[in-house]
Amino acid sequence: MNSGSFLVNGKATDTVGVSDRAVQFGDGLFETFRVHQGRVRYLQRHITRLRAGCKRLHLDGVDFASLQKQICTLARQTNAGVLKLILSRGNGSRGYRPVPRQEPTVILGLHALPGYAADLQSTGIRTRICKLRLSLQPVLAGIKHLNRLEQVLARAEWDDDAIHEGLLRDSRDRLVEGTMSNLFLIRDGELLTADLQYCGVSGIMRSVIMDVSKTLDIDTRTGSLSLDDIACADEVFVCNCVAGIWPVRQVDGICEPAIGPLTRQLMQAVEGWDDAENDHWYSS
Amino acid sequence: MNSGSFLVNGKATDTVGVSDRAVQFGDGLFETFRVHQGRVRYLQRHITRLRAGCKRLHLDGVDFASLQKQICTLARQTNAGVLKLILSRGNGSRGYRPVPRQEPTVILGLHALPGYAADLQSTGIRTRICKLRLSLQPVLAGIKHLNRLEQVLARAEWDDDAIHEGLLRDSRDRLVEGTMSNLFLIRDGELLTADLQYCGVSGIMRSVIMDVSKTLDIDTRTGSLSLDDIACADEVFVCNCVAGIWPVRQVDGICEPAIGPLTRQLMQAVEGWDDAENDHWYSS
Repeated sequence: MNSGSFLVNGKATDTVGVSDRAVQFGDGLFETFRVHQGRVRYLQRHITRLRAGCKRLHLDGVDFASLQKQICTLARQTNAGVLKLILSRGNGSRGYRPVPRQEPTVILGLHALPGYAADLQSTGIRTRICKLRLSLQPVLAGIKHLNRLEQVLARAEWDDDAIHEGLLRDSRDRLVEGTMSNLFLIRDGELLTADLQYCGVSGIMRSVIMDVSKTLDIDTRTGSLSLDDIACADEVFVCNCVAGIWPVRQVDGICEPAIGPLTRQLMQAVEGWDDAENDHWYSS
Repeated sequence: MNSGSFLVNGKATDTVGVSDRAVQFGDGLFETFRVHQGRVRYLQRHITRLRAGCKRLHLDGVDFASLQKQICTLARQTNAGVLKLILSRGNGSRGYRPVPRQEPTVILGLHALPGYAADLQSTGIRTRICKLRLSLQPVLAGIKHLNRLEQVLARAEWDDDAIHEGLLRDSRDRLVEGTMSNLFLIRDGELLTADLQYCGVSGIMRSVIMDVSKTLDIDTRTGSLSLDDIACADEVFVCNCVAGIWPVRQVDGICEPAIGPLTRQLMQAVEGWDDAENDHWYSS
């Protein structure tokens, strides 16, 4: 299953037209779902973000009911894996102008879980600060769109397998996120994460963690983060839907935080978290 | 020929793998060549920009000799048209990290000329100022990369066929370019265009015009342009390789410049311009 099993507009194929607007312009969105026991975790949260992305890009005509059905059907094929959805504005002519009432393209791919060492959640990870700065574009901030050259270039900055994630600042020196994860700091018992008004991806695991922290009475604040903030943090972790929470043990040249009690508490709570909306959809 | 005739890695096909990094991340570059009498105009300028883009994206392994040969062979199939090249980092795994020594993907498509009214060069065009602001990203500025959501969203702002181009400002209010063209102003006999250090595409026709203006002893300056600058300009035009030079007769709500003598002089000179390097390559 490593090379993936693909559906394009419901048809088993691993190709897409070269005129598709994903190929031509990166004109679309994606979602990366974690599949667990044949079910997609946090399905409704993903769909909500996808809808927000469609609205932002004026990407109309998506049949969300059919899409969810396809996602759930494909997920049943595996016990544990990653399901990636790409939703593009569809086949295009040679020009930026979106064609009205265009049929979107739905690409679904089922993949094996990435080969991360199984003990990263307990050992913690090493990270670095990337040189590349995220640009500020409020129109695209928060959504998971297909224009990912900044992430590609940031990830190309290091080749050392001992470093698991790179942390990104924006052009105003604010610390925003990892190349493939969101970033949280803990200081004086408070959970801090970057607001994502100008850049960054509003991660599903980030939203779960913020909801979970409420139930644990952990104060959470979104705002501006700096290198000084991470240097002074008591605990640091990154998260995404596939890896869950990774405690950060090292930020090269900046700090070497311990894996602290709040990170452990959040990891445990997220593990046992019952995403009510998600389960509701599955049972309906 | 309207739907295009395509070659993917030298093979006649109109599909590409869904795992290609163009589809997944917009991880690549493109060039849009004007074909005239079976030959590509300004071939060497395009190739030079493409090489610069490859360097910026660390996109290695392109066989430029073979690529140029393919481009010229395909161009011979038509008397007049547009040839679009997409060069991606190739087939990828599910992750931002570029795989070393990956084979790039070369997509070539031959298309009919766009259906612009033939008299736009003599009548001039109407333009508008777009709401969307270009973000500042020096790492991607100037090159013609595949992350084009800003252009798609800017072009989606209007649906009036009487408006031929939208002009874009960056997040610092500087006037940069059109959605698919570069912008020039003329004031007191001087040719002005935006510098492209932070955003924008370094257009081939822009570089031709700047070279041609030297031979005509027209002073040229690149720098910051504002809405005030365009409001005060004596002449305004936009340009790209397919349309050539389009005089701007109207910038909605800002100004209604005349088609002036320097624009006419440049249009004539560009028309007759003998791109020596280009011809040298063809004769060799």
